[in-house]
Amino acid sequence: MTGTVLGVAGVGLIGGSIALRAHAAGATVIGFDRDAAALAAAAAAGAIEATAPSLAELAQMCDIVAIALPVDVTAEVLATTPELDRPELVFDVASVKAPIVAAAAERTHFVASHPLAGRETGGFAAADAALFDGCVWALAPARDAAAQARLERLIATLGARPLVIAAADHDRLVAVSSHLPQLVSVALGAELAAAGDADRRVYDLCGPGMRSMLRLAASDAALWAPIAQANATSVAEALEALAAALQTMAGGLRAGDLAPLLAAFENAHRALPFTAPKR
Amino acid sequence: MTGTVLGVAGVGLIGGSIALRAHAAGATVIGFDRDAAALAAAAAAGAIEATAPSLAELAQMCDIVAIALPVDVTAEVLATTPELDRPELVFDVASVKAPIVAAAAERTHFVASHPLAGRETGGFAAADAALFDGCVWALAPARDAAAQARLERLIATLGARPLVIAAADHDRLVAVSSHLPQLVSVALGAELAAAGDADRRVYDLCGPGMRSMLRLAASDAALWAPIAQANATSVAEALEALAAALQTMAGGLRAGDLAPLLAAFENAHRALPFTAPKR
Repeated sequence: MTGTVLGVAGVGLIGGSIALRAHAAGATVIGFDRDAAALAAAAAAGAIEATAPSLAELAQMCDIVAIALPVDVTAEVLATTPELDRPELVFDVASVKAPIVAAAAERTHFVASHPLAGRETGGFAAADAALFDGCVWALAPARDAAAQARLERLIATLGARPLVIAAADHDRLVAVSSHLPQLVSVALGAELAAAGDADRRVYDLCGPGMRSMLRLAASDAALWAPIAQANATSVAEALEALAAALQTMAGGLRAGDLAPLLAAFENAHRALPFTAPKR
Repeated sequence: MTGTVLGVAGVGLIGGSIALRAHAAGATVIGFDRDAAALAAAAAAGAIEATAPSLAELAQMCDIVAIALPVDVTAEVLATTPELDRPELVFDVASVKAPIVAAAAERTHFVASHPLAGRETGGFAAADAALFDGCVWALAPARDAAAQARLERLIATLGARPLVIAAADHDRLVAVSSHLPQLVSVALGAELAAAGDADRRVYDLCGPGMRSMLRLAASDAALWAPIAQANATSVAEALEALAAALQTMAGGLRAGDLAPLLAAFENAHRALPFTAPKR
């Protein structure tokens, strides 16, 4: 990426990882973040070479701008920052795409995208140049074909695999593939807390299975609440379908009928081969 | 454990791991398994030095017998094998304790126990001398205090931490701490399979979050169905409570009310510090 000036707005887990990998690939990276400490950490790590005082000024300085902000903030800045029409490519990384595409309707070189990468810990401290290695990186078809092609090349440079998918399809599917497991982990953690309030010994009886199911629950509510809100109908449908399946399983157990449980195992085992990471 | 002859009935993941660790600690280990291939693998790995042709004969040959069989088989052999009164200590490792204690009512030196260890892969091939390191190993108070004390020492030798807990309390609590996360992972996998049948692209959109939530779903239904059945009422209650929480969350999202979701995050975060492994 030598010769490319890349702006990164929001140097948290995703933005910081983009900055680290693009810097390693030869790009000149400029950062913008409302959090001065995050910018300082990114600069100290060598991820960014300069900072911009605002998103509008970042847009004036760069060939490409990555917007790595929470979904609601991303929508807002895309709608209200006409300076973002100057770079050849502007893309976001939010987990919900349809509201972003709608908010960016005026933006000329914008491409909506979403890397299927993440960790339960956020902030630049968790950023990693290898975060995207082998991941799928979804992007919505863009009006500006050149900008879309440039993002597809950038995604490959960052180590990921581009997958072009309509924003509405993306949102419907990630409700199941991403938002559902996140919220299930949280709901499971809340059930454990309730059990722990009644009898602390339940914590002693948590083994590696429960711990792996609670890894996602450590995530930040401030990050996930806007995601769930932005994809509310599809997420609600996914939660309700899982709740119904759990009730069917419970009803079977109460009636001495293991068929729902066995069918769930069989169906789950059918899905597992397709969820392995492709490298 | 030099000088101790330990019998292991069932050289799968748990029994095989007990054999490996006890052998490393100096015990003479004798194996029994209906699966000749599993016995051969355990012998080839040096986990067992001899085999017994039946559980009754194993009991005649050993000071201690570990019964590492599925929960329903464990209950059956404890009820029907009076030879198990000969060893100084007989213990089981099944995930549900009340039916085991009831089935073993006639056994004089029996202690019901359950190591909070496990993997989604079973069989001797998955056995590991370090499987129990740092784990809690629950045991029910036993009539034979000497047998109970001997099991507590053995648990420590195997690397785990003994936790004495009444069988009924154990079963009520593991319904939440162990059986619930297992079945939730399976139900989530089944939902993903249903989504995949409608649109294969959902598999491309599975990131590390979904993958970690599906690790347990790879477990064997033949192992888990009898566990769920043996603890049916408590497991059904746990499934129903989680289903209700998911529906409340979904209802909030549909109504634009994030309060249930935010409360779930807050409660989950309250529980997380207590689920970390203690070493």
